[in-house]
Amino acid sequence: MPQTRSFASDNYAPAHPAVLAALTAANVGHAGSYGADPWTERLQEVVRHHFGEQATAYPVFNGTGANVVALTSMLPRWGAAVTSEHAHVHQDENGAPERVGGIKLLTVTAPDGKLTPGAVDRFVGDLGDQHRAQPLVVSITQATELGTVYSPEEIRAISDRAHAAGMRVHLDGARLANAAASLGVSLRETTTDVGVDVVSFGGTKNGLLFGEAVVVLDPDAVQGVDHVRKMTMQLASKMRFVSAQLTALLEDDLWRTGAAHANAMAARLRAALSPVASGGEVPDGGTHAAPSGLAFSQTTQANAVFAVLPRAAAEALRADFAFYDWAAASPDPVTGDERVEVRWMCSWDTTTEDVDAFATAVGAALEAPGQA
Amino acid sequence: MPQTRSFASDNYAPAHPAVLAALTAANVGHAGSYGADPWTERLQEVVRHHFGEQATAYPVFNGTGANVVALTSMLPRWGAAVTSEHAHVHQDENGAPERVGGIKLLTVTAPDGKLTPGAVDRFVGDLGDQHRAQPLVVSITQATELGTVYSPEEIRAISDRAHAAGMRVHLDGARLANAAASLGVSLRETTTDVGVDVVSFGGTKNGLLFGEAVVVLDPDAVQGVDHVRKMTMQLASKMRFVSAQLTALLEDDLWRTGAAHANAMAARLRAALSPVASGGEVPDGGTHAAPSGLAFSQTTQANAVFAVLPRAAAEALRADFAFYDWAAASPDPVTGDERVEVRWMCSWDTTTEDVDAFATAVGAALEAPGQA
Amino acid sequence: MPQTRSFASDNYAPAHPAVLAALTAANVGHAGSYGADPWTERLQEVVRHHFGEQATAYPVFNGTGANVVALTSMLPRWGAAVTSEHAHVHQDENGAPERVGGIKLLTVTAPDGKLTPGAVDRFVGDLGDQHRAQPLVVSITQATELGTVYSPEEIRAISDRAHAAGMRVHLDGARLANAAASLGVSLRETTTDVGVDVVSFGGTKNGLLFGEAVVVLDPDAVQGVDHVRKMTMQLASKMRFVSAQLTALLEDDLWRTGAAHANAMAARLRAALSPVASGGEVPDGGTHAAPSGLAFSQTTQANAVFAVLPRAAAEALRADFAFYDWAAASPDPVTGDERVEVRWMCSWDTTTEDVDAFATAVGAALEAPGQA
Amino acid sequence: MPQTRSFASDNYAPAHPAVLAALTAANVGHAGSYGADPWTERLQEVVRHHFGEQATAYPVFNGTGANVVALTSMLPRWGAAVTSEHAHVHQDENGAPERVGGIKLLTVTAPDGKLTPGAVDRFVGDLGDQHRAQPLVVSITQATELGTVYSPEEIRAISDRAHAAGMRVHLDGARLANAAASLGVSLRETTTDVGVDVVSFGGTKNGLLFGEAVVVLDPDAVQGVDHVRKMTMQLASKMRFVSAQLTALLEDDLWRTGAAHANAMAARLRAALSPVASGGEVPDGGTHAAPSGLAFSQTTQANAVFAVLPRAAAEALRADFAFYDWAAASPDPVTGDERVEVRWMCSWDTTTEDVDAFATAVGAALEAPGQA
Repeated sequence: MPQTRSFASDNYAPAHPAVLAALTAANVGHAGSYGADPWTERLQEVVRHHFGEQATAYPVFNGTGANVVALTSMLPRWGAAVTSEHAHVHQDENGAPERVGGIKLLTVTAPDGKLTPGAVDRFVGDLGDQHRAQPLVVSITQATELGTVYSPEEIRAISDRAHAAGMRVHLDGARLANAAASLGVSLRETTTDVGVDVVSFGGTKNGLLFGEAVVVLDPDAVQGVDHVRKMTMQLASKMRFVSAQLTALLEDDLWRTGAAHANAMAARLRAALSPVASGGEVPDGGTHAAPSGLAFSQTTQANAVFAVLPRAAAEALRADFAFYDWAAASPDPVTGDERVEVRWMCSWDTTTEDVDAFATAVGAALEAPGQA
Repeated sequence: MPQTRSFASDNYAPAHPAVLAALTAANVGHAGSYGADPWTERLQEVVRHHFGEQATAYPVFNGTGANVVALTSMLPRWGAAVTSEHAHVHQDENGAPERVGGIKLLTVTAPDGKLTPGAVDRFVGDLGDQHRAQPLVVSITQATELGTVYSPEEIRAISDRAHAAGMRVHLDGARLANAAASLGVSLRETTTDVGVDVVSFGGTKNGLLFGEAVVVLDPDAVQGVDHVRKMTMQLASKMRFVSAQLTALLEDDLWRTGAAHANAMAARLRAALSPVASGGEVPDGGTHAAPSGLAFSQTTQANAVFAVLPRAAAEALRADFAFYDWAAASPDPVTGDERVEVRWMCSWDTTTEDVDAFATAVGAALEAPGQA
Repeated sequence: MPQTRSFASDNYAPAHPAVLAALTAANVGHAGSYGADPWTERLQEVVRHHFGEQATAYPVFNGTGANVVALTSMLPRWGAAVTSEHAHVHQDENGAPERVGGIKLLTVTAPDGKLTPGAVDRFVGDLGDQHRAQPLVVSITQATELGTVYSPEEIRAISDRAHAAGMRVHLDGARLANAAASLGVSLRETTTDVGVDVVSFGGTKNGLLFGEAVVVLDPDAVQGVDHVRKMTMQLASKMRFVSAQLTALLEDDLWRTGAAHANAMAARLRAALSPVASGGEVPDGGTHAAPSGLAFSQTTQANAVFAVLPRAAAEALRADFAFYDWAAASPDPVTGDERVEVRWMCSWDTTTEDVDAFATAVGAALEAPGQA
Repeated sequence: MPQTRSFASDNYAPAHPAVLAALTAANVGHAGSYGADPWTERLQEVVRHHFGEQATAYPVFNGTGANVVALTSMLPRWGAAVTSEHAHVHQDENGAPERVGGIKLLTVTAPDGKLTPGAVDRFVGDLGDQHRAQPLVVSITQATELGTVYSPEEIRAISDRAHAAGMRVHLDGARLANAAASLGVSLRETTTDVGVDVVSFGGTKNGLLFGEAVVVLDPDAVQGVDHVRKMTMQLASKMRFVSAQLTALLEDDLWRTGAAHANAMAARLRAALSPVASGGEVPDGGTHAAPSGLAFSQTTQANAVFAVLPRAAAEALRADFAFYDWAAASPDPVTGDERVEVRWMCSWDTTTEDVDAFATAVGAALEAPGQA
């Protein structure tokens, strides 16, 4: 069993004690199945509080499930979703949207993981053309898969362009809490208030054992969510156990506390590494040559630090700490050594001690990769 | 919040305290995601103990998910599964096998919910015909959706016929524990040892908060289970929380204790109702006329009692107890009153007091439905 | 190359010379692709003439394509179609509706191939239940796969019940021409005028080289037909060659001439066989025991004769004439010999000589199967 | 009806007289359906002659159908195909591969429409990762959608890299004839001999009324093609009419004659336009600024000319000639006027008079767009 907290993923973390307590409290007596229970009713109140009076939550099992239920409910059979080339829905769901929902994904380059209104412009001409998958949804991720965060204005600009073109806006919010905490805004200020139609609201990566919710902000943006959730195997029979966790997260701002902490730990890690980041602070997506040593490849706005470093240093570090490679990087422009882009991710339970020890180890690995 | 235990479904019940305790115990420190954790490793040992050395468990979220992952892994794109007209996979999954797996279901009549080897014979001629969906799997449910149980010999007869025809055997074991407890056999005696290839092993209805497992008994019967599970959104990131529950259920025979108790409560209910069952004990699937009053419509071999009674009595009873109508029934042959077939289901936490109170209420409703 | 016309299927027949002439005439100069051509425009006029002012034709390649495009355009992703157990869409399309459209088929027994309004009643209770595929379409075949024909009143009764329940009506008209010719009614009298919403109109089996059309009678019954046709690979680039054929069939009543002729040949065959039909004229679907010798198993209302005869006689006959077994039949009640149900099908080019020679051969085979 | 031949698409052209004659000749007597006919048997011989002894042809209706049948037969349910961003299968099939086959497409940039072995390298790391769609096929188009042609060596390099990685190679040969004619090689020299596993062989764009074939070059590269073709609605009942056309095309080198002529007409058009191509001959994919006037945006290796010109000139020209816009282009760097990339396509029946008249018109439109 792991003795230390890793920087691999926020889904390596356990559940928050308050979430587990809520789950335990829900384990009393019989309750109606498939959502006909008081915990799911209570969740709806909490969700309306955070996302607005029109909001309805459909609890599901996992993030891929939330995305597929959301997109499938938003799109006709001939629909497509415009999304970033880095989007989880495109990269890390083994084609679930295509295979389960029959949805075509239209990707655009996005060096920092963020779409712009130009993504709408690029595909708007396909609308009405029977030969083309119909781009009726724009799907953005907040915080992005690259640890960056859209400002409310950036989302608003995308939503306005999309709506004007007759498209709807989906937001993959697996780490929405981290984004809102980073921006210092409410959940609705970065979703409902800026034109988002449907949110995949994430719980698993922010302290739940499991559980996410499709949160429909505009009821006109979807069709048949109940049916879609069931037929895509995302309908929990003992739904109270999902709803109770989500309610615990959303009540009393546990969502913000945990996310803000994870963000702070990532910021602390970045700051601690700055002195050894000879490659500089300027992110370039890891695609351009950077000087020898460590270089940050993205800005750090949520709970992840992306960096490029020599592969030897990364491997040395990995002997003691788990983390994932993100992408191959061009060789070191000075030494010609192989380099790799990595993702170091903090979670609600990362401690300052964890960060400091890890930063020290990074420094050591960079100095003497062979001996780390 | 409900004050009493209902007879609606075994998924109205809470989790068993031992399962919750195991879940809580797993909530420590960081763990590899997607199954790379010690709890999932331990589950494999427990599953091999129960199902044989070749068995591998793939934890999933829910029963429909288990069925779809199993069937999709067992069938080529042009495959079909032969199953009972009453099968959950056909009746209660909103077409998930068809929509998610592209699987055609070929149904046969089965008044008691059980297939016979004749189901294989009926479709074997379609094999090799490009115009026909290829019936390469037979899917049986144990215990069945009608509360009946296959003997090991009955399953063996189906498996032998299926295998001889080049078909594989899937067993929907949402209530496999109830069947094994009813038969007084081990899990493998009603699966592995009688030719079953893949099992959907149920946990939710037998004391878990959520969680099932696709248990592959013959590795040659499936392809790409890992990929299928992911792309059908059944891969839990924090899998330890599914595995720990399943392990708790399968260790120390908690699965048998809970299932045997639920079965015993159903038997007790049936015995208590026999005196008022003027329709007699002979099950006829509810499809033929039965005398006035209460008539049992299926044998009671697991944790459910199926009965036909006047609709007025059923509605009166429902004022105090939740349960589901199963099917419309022919009018009472004596009085001509509308009748309905109902399902009364017991769970691991049903008490003798619950049963006795309910049986008394049934008697009262039958006597004076208007005043119950 | 076959020297004689067989009784295997109406799709063994060549194209009608007038159809081929129309195809040849369309092979002039450049024309807009995908339907933007004058032949497709003309087809619309002809279709409106036959099916009513609201009718729109969407030419497609084949019958399975027509059915899948029709049903997929009529149903949401969570939809199901109620159909006969003998329906082509269920039996002979290798699961195309399920695999391509994600459509669940709900079958009902239909000994003569015809649904009744009771089929609606059986599934209406599933509407609104998230656990059930939603039965939003009833699909009937006219003439049926068993060579029987619905009267306009029978279709009207189904349509009325379906519409009252919120369901739509699809008609698989692969042999609609044969039905209309048999009934002596116009095409609209057995479709538009009796409440059918969408028709798969067949051409291939009535003298085309290839080509069918989805004919939408009520535009409110479908969504996105253009997109669905394209994405299911049924959109012909040189559409003029489909449209010109369909127009040739529908102009000048070639459709009726050919179909009436095929029907007449089937009637002639039946009449010629009556003397040797010791099993009698009473159809029983081939499911009950019939006396020794030949027995008709369905009424002959269109262009097919269904009969039960000793397998030895069928095999003897097959040495000279191609035809298909339909189903296994119970052994001869007198001799105990194996028997088989066969389908003998006439086409637009079957001659009286073909029929008479075949009838004679049947008689001979029945007398001395070993020497035929 | 159009009076002139357009430069819109090779699918605007009629069928070649020899093809129509072969179709007519096949319209004799009864023939077995679904491919059990002598014309389909003959096609297999012809295909083996052109593609090698292991080759098998599966006639289908259209190009999208050929691609979907090919890819679906080559890939497991969790598969993906690596392809160019310009690929027809990605751009112009309304998501058919995703929706019908559940196939994920992984696109790479390809300014000239051609993949390189680097496309394999980019995705090889995803193999075995359950989170990623499995890139088990590389799909190239020959000639490409941009009118360019792979050399045999270029295809061999891709095939070798793909095979070494465990991937298979699919070739979309809607215009394979044009490529082989352009290269002066046999069909097998640009397919079988350079490692291609499965070809979508095009007929419609090279003189057929309709009809393509999935040609399997390596039988180990596919599974269940018969079933897949049927269930994706690409199985013609009167298959002789597809096979006879394909045979006519492939016998006597009609395929080469027609394609070589179309190529020659495109070359003639390009040569005729060179004097007015002030933007020069250097293709840049239309993505970079080019001088005022006409600029070629791709090399002309098959039957299409791609060019960038002022939108006003294109619109003026369109008054008399049909052709398609391909992409928006950057404004004219000198005048700032809006510009557009267009595709001018020649077909088997384009005449030198057509080309010369068109070239003259282009020149006029460029000189005085307002008065053309």
